[in-house]
Amino acid sequence: MAVGQDSLGKMLPVAGVRLGTVAAGIKTPGRRDLVLIEASAATNCAAVFTRNAFCAAPVTVARENLRACGQRPRYMLVNTGNANAGTGKAGIADARACARAVAAEAGVDEQQVLPFSTGVIGEPLPVGLIEDAVPAAIDALSEEGWSSAAEGILTTDTRPKGCSVSFHCEGRDFVVTGIAKGAGMIRPNMATMLAYLATDIAIDQDLLQDILNNAVAMSFNRITVDGDTSTNDACVLLATGAAGNPGIIDNASAAYLALSHAVQEVCINLAQGLVRDGEGASKFVTVQVNGGRSEAECLEVAYTIAHSPLVKTALFASDPNWGRLLAAIGRADVPQLQVDRVAVYLNEVLIAREGCRADSYTEEQGVAAMAPEDIVIRIELDRGEAVATVWTTDFSYDYVRINAEYRT
Amino acid sequence: MAVGQDSLGKMLPVAGVRLGTVAAGIKTPGRRDLVLIEASAATNCAAVFTRNAFCAAPVTVARENLRACGQRPRYMLVNTGNANAGTGKAGIADARACARAVAAEAGVDEQQVLPFSTGVIGEPLPVGLIEDAVPAAIDALSEEGWSSAAEGILTTDTRPKGCSVSFHCEGRDFVVTGIAKGAGMIRPNMATMLAYLATDIAIDQDLLQDILNNAVAMSFNRITVDGDTSTNDACVLLATGAAGNPGIIDNASAAYLALSHAVQEVCINLAQGLVRDGEGASKFVTVQVNGGRSEAECLEVAYTIAHSPLVKTALFASDPNWGRLLAAIGRADVPQLQVDRVAVYLNEVLIAREGCRADSYTEEQGVAAMAPEDIVIRIELDRGEAVATVWTTDFSYDYVRINAEYRT
Repeated sequence: MAVGQDSLGKMLPVAGVRLGTVAAGIKTPGRRDLVLIEASAATNCAAVFTRNAFCAAPVTVARENLRACGQRPRYMLVNTGNANAGTGKAGIADARACARAVAAEAGVDEQQVLPFSTGVIGEPLPVGLIEDAVPAAIDALSEEGWSSAAEGILTTDTRPKGCSVSFHCEGRDFVVTGIAKGAGMIRPNMATMLAYLATDIAIDQDLLQDILNNAVAMSFNRITVDGDTSTNDACVLLATGAAGNPGIIDNASAAYLALSHAVQEVCINLAQGLVRDGEGASKFVTVQVNGGRSEAECLEVAYTIAHSPLVKTALFASDPNWGRLLAAIGRADVPQLQVDRVAVYLNEVLIAREGCRADSYTEEQGVAAMAPEDIVIRIELDRGEAVATVWTTDFSYDYVRINAEYRT
Repeated sequence: MAVGQDSLGKMLPVAGVRLGTVAAGIKTPGRRDLVLIEASAATNCAAVFTRNAFCAAPVTVARENLRACGQRPRYMLVNTGNANAGTGKAGIADARACARAVAAEAGVDEQQVLPFSTGVIGEPLPVGLIEDAVPAAIDALSEEGWSSAAEGILTTDTRPKGCSVSFHCEGRDFVVTGIAKGAGMIRPNMATMLAYLATDIAIDQDLLQDILNNAVAMSFNRITVDGDTSTNDACVLLATGAAGNPGIIDNASAAYLALSHAVQEVCINLAQGLVRDGEGASKFVTVQVNGGRSEAECLEVAYTIAHSPLVKTALFASDPNWGRLLAAIGRADVPQLQVDRVAVYLNEVLIAREGCRADSYTEEQGVAAMAPEDIVIRIELDRGEAVATVWTTDFSYDYVRINAEYRT
């Protein structure tokens, strides 16, 4: 199950970036499970990694190599089918071996290659199969490779996620294109998700990292499927500079703001795509909390709702169960919450206020509000000016089935 | 589904306490849904209520009345089928009307009656039906009424929970008997649960409250089914003094310690009974975290595991998925956790250490460890002396079914 339209629209190539996707036979014979992304020599790179204390071997190696190459990696190698997580020292050696194989074949330093893995935890990475497939991956590199790569990085996903935004600024046209994978273990601070974005703009590396951090905070870190986070998450943003603009060095410039906006738009599109493809999802739910004293308390209320299994099973049942919503708001860690000021809306229908069902509310309205696939739960706290929005899904039989059957 | 043996053993009467259970027709015709508990005039009472900001009307009224009667209530009236929650001012008036009906019939002050409700949220309480049934409930009062009352307070529970402990101290015999209800919305800081305990010992009211607070902290506040808390939770401990001992006034006395121990034993038995009857439960899971720097960080790790839907679906599938356990430990909010010192045991089988699968571990061992209904997940953090234990269940198809179909 998945909610809404397939999100993979037209994928615009990014000058300076080529992608190759091939079958290495890691888990499923014939499946195209290995993706190589090549960046031109002038490319700057920003990245965000999982905060899970048990981070996987490729995350450790990718972080090290990114630092060692001065944030100028030339290749990113992504395998699915095996996460190389919970694999100890052998896993580190395996991740390095993969990077080395690309470096040798492409004629770059090992530190200029970043490895990424996603799939089953705790199994040794079949390094030989990956090494054998690297030459084919290099042969397959193409600026038109985004759609194949979007397919190649998937695991339990039911469909690819990708998005392009183009914008015009200071007399030039620019593009931001991105792909992502992930369908479960999704919650703030990065999920089992991998995302790769690229733009042809030229920009200072520090500013590029700022833009990525801000975009991730408002997108991938605002989604949750089941509250679990992963050991392997990573989001990479490449800036090739191939568009030939004078490099952005000022975070108040029009180009900086335009790029920020475009990167955030792509990240939100991809993040929402992950939620829409959430394991067992039958609803796409926007939880919007307004009128808090701080963004932090708005997020606390939003996540308490978004993580509540009782709310999520009610959403699955299309049950306008405002009692469970009130109960979730009431247990959120918000000091001195005045419950008689709180109002709860479902798709613009006021369902509860002053601690009970709204007088104007009818069960018919609630049923109608719950019918669409896309639901907005809006909470008005009425105690300040802060707001926050998170996106989530319902909790279905299929969620249990997928996670009881699949060995992550 | 429920795990393990029906926990209702022999229920010992408590001198000074009588219970009457009758059918008021609140939700299901003929179901015995109204329980009246009577305490003798000399009885002291301690109580703990939900911390949910949206507390239900009966909780508000019970708190007020308990204070107004100097912690000496004479009656507790418990209805199931309707929670009288999310009912605003009308709900408060309805809860008071129920207390008034008992007071009038029994010839006590309204403030000496504490109302409790559990069931559907957001529907008006059928006060007339309850008022009509009060005389029959008074007629039914009996010291032998514990087992019927244990049945009467249930909602989605599949079986009653009750337990008695007797102890001998300073030349006298004493008893603690308790009943509880609750099967979902269970997590720390009280769940959708009601519990009523009584003892025939005489004890100062403040010390009785201390004993109850400590016992609740180590029992009802250490269990979780789905992470949701309720608007209606309450736990009451009555001490009738009918055993005739000199009242306990010293919290270092042998009698105080013996009573503490007995109350905690009953509370843990009832709390575990709630988990064993957790909605859709097929496993009873003890999560034990040792070697932390503080109890708080042990609890953080334990709850992160106990709330993880990925861990819980793996438990449902009897899948010894140590990768999901490591991922959950890794995202717990524990500063500077050294993952290479962490060891993970499943029923005494070492499955992971140093961030990966233990060398000694075999898949066969893991499957054997996961086979029983009762599972112990033990985490050794190896960074301090603190420990904590919580109890939880797996996450099954039935959990989704029950909560998608039932309107709380």
